[in-house]
Amino acid sequence: MSKVAVVMGSTSDLPVMQEAIDILKGFDIEVDVDIVSAHRTPEKLFDFSKNAHKNGYSVIIAGAGGAAHLPGMVASMSPLPVIGVPVKSSNSIDGWDSILSILQMPGGVPVATVALNGAKNAGILAAQIIGSSDKCVLDKIIFYKEGLKQKVIEGAEEMKKVNSGQ
Amino acid sequence: MSKVAVVMGSTSDLPVMQEAIDILKGFDIEVDVDIVSAHRTPEKLFDFSKNAHKNGYSVIIAGAGGAAHLPGMVASMSPLPVIGVPVKSSNSIDGWDSILSILQMPGGVPVATVALNGAKNAGILAAQIIGSSDKCVLDKIIFYKEGLKQKVIEGAEEMKKVNSGQ
Amino acid sequence: MSKVAVVMGSTSDLPVMQEAIDILKGFDIEVDVDIVSAHRTPEKLFDFSKNAHKNGYSVIIAGAGGAAHLPGMVASMSPLPVIGVPVKSSNSIDGWDSILSILQMPGGVPVATVALNGAKNAGILAAQIIGSSDKCVLDKIIFYKEGLKQKVIEGAEEMKKVNSGQ
Amino acid sequence: MSKVAVVMGSTSDLPVMQEAIDILKGFDIEVDVDIVSAHRTPEKLFDFSKNAHKNGYSVIIAGAGGAAHLPGMVASMSPLPVIGVPVKSSNSIDGWDSILSILQMPGGVPVATVALNGAKNAGILAAQIIGSSDKCVLDKIIFYKEGLKQKVIEGAEEMKKVNSGQ
Amino acid sequence: MSKVAVVMGSTSDLPVMQEAIDILKGFDIEVDVDIVSAHRTPEKLFDFSKNAHKNGYSVIIAGAGGAAHLPGMVASMSPLPVIGVPVKSSNSIDGWDSILSILQMPGGVPVATVALNGAKNAGILAAQIIGSSDKCVLDKIIFYKEGLKQKVIEGAEEMKKVNSGQ
Amino acid sequence: MSKVAVVMGSTSDLPVMQEAIDILKGFDIEVDVDIVSAHRTPEKLFDFSKNAHKNGYSVIIAGAGGAAHLPGMVASMSPLPVIGVPVKSSNSIDGWDSILSILQMPGGVPVATVALNGAKNAGILAAQIIGSSDKCVLDKIIFYKEGLKQKVIEGAEEMKKVNSGQ
Amino acid sequence: MSKVAVVMGSTSDLPVMQEAIDILKGFDIEVDVDIVSAHRTPEKLFDFSKNAHKNGYSVIIAGAGGAAHLPGMVASMSPLPVIGVPVKSSNSIDGWDSILSILQMPGGVPVATVALNGAKNAGILAAQIIGSSDKCVLDKIIFYKEGLKQKVIEGAEEMKKVNSGQ
Amino acid sequence: MSKVAVVMGSTSDLPVMQEAIDILKGFDIEVDVDIVSAHRTPEKLFDFSKNAHKNGYSVIIAGAGGAAHLPGMVASMSPLPVIGVPVKSSNSIDGWDSILSILQMPGGVPVATVALNGAKNAGILAAQIIGSSDKCVLDKIIFYKEGLKQKVIEGAEEMKKVNSGQ
Repeated sequence: MSKVAVVMGSTSDLPVMQEAIDILKGFDIEVDVDIVSAHRTPEKLFDFSKNAHKNGYSVIIAGAGGAAHLPGMVASMSPLPVIGVPVKSSNSIDGWDSILSILQMPGGVPVATVALNGAKNAGILAAQIIGSSDKCVLDKIIFYKEGLKQKVIEGAEEMKKVNSGQ
Repeated sequence: MSKVAVVMGSTSDLPVMQEAIDILKGFDIEVDVDIVSAHRTPEKLFDFSKNAHKNGYSVIIAGAGGAAHLPGMVASMSPLPVIGVPVKSSNSIDGWDSILSILQMPGGVPVATVALNGAKNAGILAAQIIGSSDKCVLDKIIFYKEGLKQKVIEGAEEMKKVNSGQ
Repeated sequence: MSKVAVVMGSTSDLPVMQEAIDILKGFDIEVDVDIVSAHRTPEKLFDFSKNAHKNGYSVIIAGAGGAAHLPGMVASMSPLPVIGVPVKSSNSIDGWDSILSILQMPGGVPVATVALNGAKNAGILAAQIIGSSDKCVLDKIIFYKEGLKQKVIEGAEEMKKVNSGQ
Repeated sequence: MSKVAVVMGSTSDLPVMQEAIDILKGFDIEVDVDIVSAHRTPEKLFDFSKNAHKNGYSVIIAGAGGAAHLPGMVASMSPLPVIGVPVKSSNSIDGWDSILSILQMPGGVPVATVALNGAKNAGILAAQIIGSSDKCVLDKIIFYKEGLKQKVIEGAEEMKKVNSGQ
Repeated sequence: MSKVAVVMGSTSDLPVMQEAIDILKGFDIEVDVDIVSAHRTPEKLFDFSKNAHKNGYSVIIAGAGGAAHLPGMVASMSPLPVIGVPVKSSNSIDGWDSILSILQMPGGVPVATVALNGAKNAGILAAQIIGSSDKCVLDKIIFYKEGLKQKVIEGAEEMKKVNSGQ
Repeated sequence: MSKVAVVMGSTSDLPVMQEAIDILKGFDIEVDVDIVSAHRTPEKLFDFSKNAHKNGYSVIIAGAGGAAHLPGMVASMSPLPVIGVPVKSSNSIDGWDSILSILQMPGGVPVATVALNGAKNAGILAAQIIGSSDKCVLDKIIFYKEGLKQKVIEGAEEMKKVNSGQ
Repeated sequence: MSKVAVVMGSTSDLPVMQEAIDILKGFDIEVDVDIVSAHRTPEKLFDFSKNAHKNGYSVIIAGAGGAAHLPGMVASMSPLPVIGVPVKSSNSIDGWDSILSILQMPGGVPVATVALNGAKNAGILAAQIIGSSDKCVLDKIIFYKEGLKQKVIEGAEEMKKVNSGQ
Repeated sequence: MSKVAVVMGSTSDLPVMQEAIDILKGFDIEVDVDIVSAHRTPEKLFDFSKNAHKNGYSVIIAGAGGAAHLPGMVASMSPLPVIGVPVKSSNSIDGWDSILSILQMPGGVPVATVALNGAKNAGILAAQIIGSSDKCVLDKIIFYKEGLKQKVIEGAEEMKKVNSGQ
């Protein structure tokens, strides 16, 4: 069965990255979480990235902030699809540095970048990647999207009731 | 076998998007190409997006420039992973509008965004997504990355020869 | 009589968009309000946009934040003038993404964009559009602008009194 | 019959603004064109703005670049809907100054802003405003949008032929 | 004797602009303060700007935020030096719109722009302009700058004492 | 009689700064021009700035690009009004660095900043500063502004002739 | 023995700059701290910069915000390596002005710029510069980096415990 | 004797980086040049970075563009001072991505960043670092800076001659 690795540069990224973990668990997809700092634990980065596809992972989600090198460096050493989450950490300039240093990868080494602090979407994207070859997960995504729609429709109903009662 | 759909908002995006097509063909992955304009052919957008997973596609690559709504709108209607290519088209402000209107998707509807004009990386990412469940494609990616390394090493050798001969 | 549709991507946009509703009511212009999410309820988007001009609306106001596709997608399917309100929502990067993904529409599909969080101005603009063919509404706008002037003049008087009493 | 005024800050804006004129003529809408500089001919600005609605105009299109005050100043003195075109003139910083000084109008004085150099869309928007109360113009817009769609569909056909012949 | 006019677009700009008033009073320079909204009181703008040099003013300080047209419009109608203060008001995008719409004036119509919220510096600059032909005011500026130096030197002494006591 | 000093950081700034010199000569105002590099000739910077008001100058115009410290450093040592011209030099990032490092001076040390490459406006502003206490120069500025107006009016006439002849 | 000078433009920069002082003390490197304002105490700037290498300093760390001229002006007059710390002070625009006016120095006069508010890294960089010729300090840096790694590894352990206990 | 390593991510960076090499040779400092791609040759990156201080280097200069991870990754594994050169390569967004992904390093891992394409300054900074403990190199830098001054003074003389001859 497919398994996703969620790594981040620092424990301070966990509150943001937790959303990726939660949504994957909601899809019943196995998740392993670890702290891998490109700048402070380069050997661990090396080991993790070189071996992720041998260790049974299908997708890697990597989150980091500021001069965020983790997603790109993992992508440079792993043949797996790597999803990058730009984190608006305290040492980031409104998130622009996080976004640009993850998104603007050179030709040959893509990182699938999601929105600033978009860990939830990183989780959904990982599920979609698994779902692209796993009918059962694909169905869960279709079901999940249906749920999004229902929530908007209910919100619209609610708002109309409130408005008509004004 | 896995198949990738490459769609773009306008024929003027083709010179950029061709790199995605070429690299996928290089990986022997089947590609279908089409023009689907979110703003000019919304019905075609709906038909394409709603049915892509039923029509045998595993991944969708969508490129657009300016207020680039195509990738996000495809993602809103397809359960498949959607890769967005921000195109620095003539009506774009240095590419910032293309990037932000593709990257900053709301929670629930991810688009896997690559670098500005990064169609080549979109192709590689699509291959990696297929490779995450297809050993044969995964091996091709490992082989491709090895080739990137060789080219850098040869470039370094070349430069040293030139420099020592100065 | 003319009628305005105010739609927004999420109930969380309502506090901003309420100003459009209030000002239109102040001009005695009929307003209908609804939640239409481009990314979560694409079918509703389709239905609403295709039929707005048949359902008696003269103008559409659409507000959204982040990768804000709602105004542009409505504009792609409706022949009516569409006013876009970039909302500085929590998932937006200081509003730049909201602005650029609404403003930078391609040739052929305009969105009349107002300032960030400028829902009040969206309401006034809708009234001006109606007023361009309705003498009665035009007079109300002339009267409204006169009121703006009076308020500034009174503010100036007030300030001078306070200053002279310093 | 409805008439549109197209004004711009300088003759150097004409190459950009011509697209607004051309598209309006294409819709058989009467257009008057003039140079009105907010900074160099303030009296003309006042005269024009104060009297535009008395002179039979339904909509005003105003284009300017750099610290672009023309659209906002016209809007401050006219009750008509004013469409602003940010021009990327030679004295503009990549167009950001043009955009922000037109878009970010204070509450009470809206300018309907279109994309950078988006004069064509300004013309279409003016037509849509007229069309919101003129069935004949509305039908032309529906027809025009149909034409946009056909062109994309033909472009897609063309591209497929070329590709299959590769 | 020289007199400075301080005008601003809204009473909400007063907390920022007060610093200009205070520093000018500190230099014993006469100041008149008024609210002149380019967008809400265009006639007052006209009257004020056309006549400022006849009414005994030597310099005009104008502060505004967002699409800030006041300084530039005053400059378009007055031959006096106009100092523009970009105000980071609530309707401004981090101040960028305020800065660019004041700074980027076209050739022929300068505005002497100071830093975002830099009303204090606007006051000093006005004094320097007066001082350029008034020996007495020039001496006050020299004295003021000497005071700045002393304060830094005392701050340095203080810090060293604190540090050595650590 | 009043005299203006025009200084710049490098001979490469001369093509931009020449416009300031030319316009001042057009106003019959005496101009001295010099190269003073804040970073390469700090002693010259000190001598020039400390003594400018003793050497008969009324106003200083300083132009520089990139991390442009010349205008601010001159302002730190001279009691005269200093006009800063941000130059979009080859080592500048689209001019943003030039603008921000001149505009954003700390409280106490203003620089009267003009538009990017706005040397012409720097010259006019210097003339206006002199004109604020010199009736003869003031009249020339009024005359100059009248000329700007005439040119726009003639341009408008020209354009109308061309258009009517289409 | 090597000695580092830490200077800053204002006492308000001390909370940020203290991190540079603390880390250098942690490496047992002698530090002198002073307030040197480029704009308010130019003579002190001159004296300090001209003589720093004669006064036994090996490296200079200079921090400033807004139009931050201190690091560049010190670099213009000292042959020593100068490390610049862009401070996000209250008068700075999100730090962009601080960064660009320190980073974008012209050819010939480098400033070694660190991250926004990156005083800690400035201290480490100063130590690395000393360490490049002082084996003892180099060893301390190697030891320090080892400590960073341990902390990340412990953080990862901690997180895994917490997670498994969930 | 001290030796500098100049590494870059791609041979396409060489035209920019050559300036660093040339200036160091001008100071008679030994330079080794190599291509080390963080993303394409991660093993070479590891070997180079881990061993640079053992291989006799005193300083490392690393240049890269786009999502530029090379300087930061070298800094994460070497105790030596690392100078980062943001290269405005073809895949960079006006250089912003290059700058931010090099400058905004997290606490503990500094990169001494120079201006965009500022390879010449990187070379001078490397020389200054060596000069901070090597009197002979320090004297060369003092001499070099004297040369910069002379060139500006001569340029000023030249300009004055040309101007007086006008």
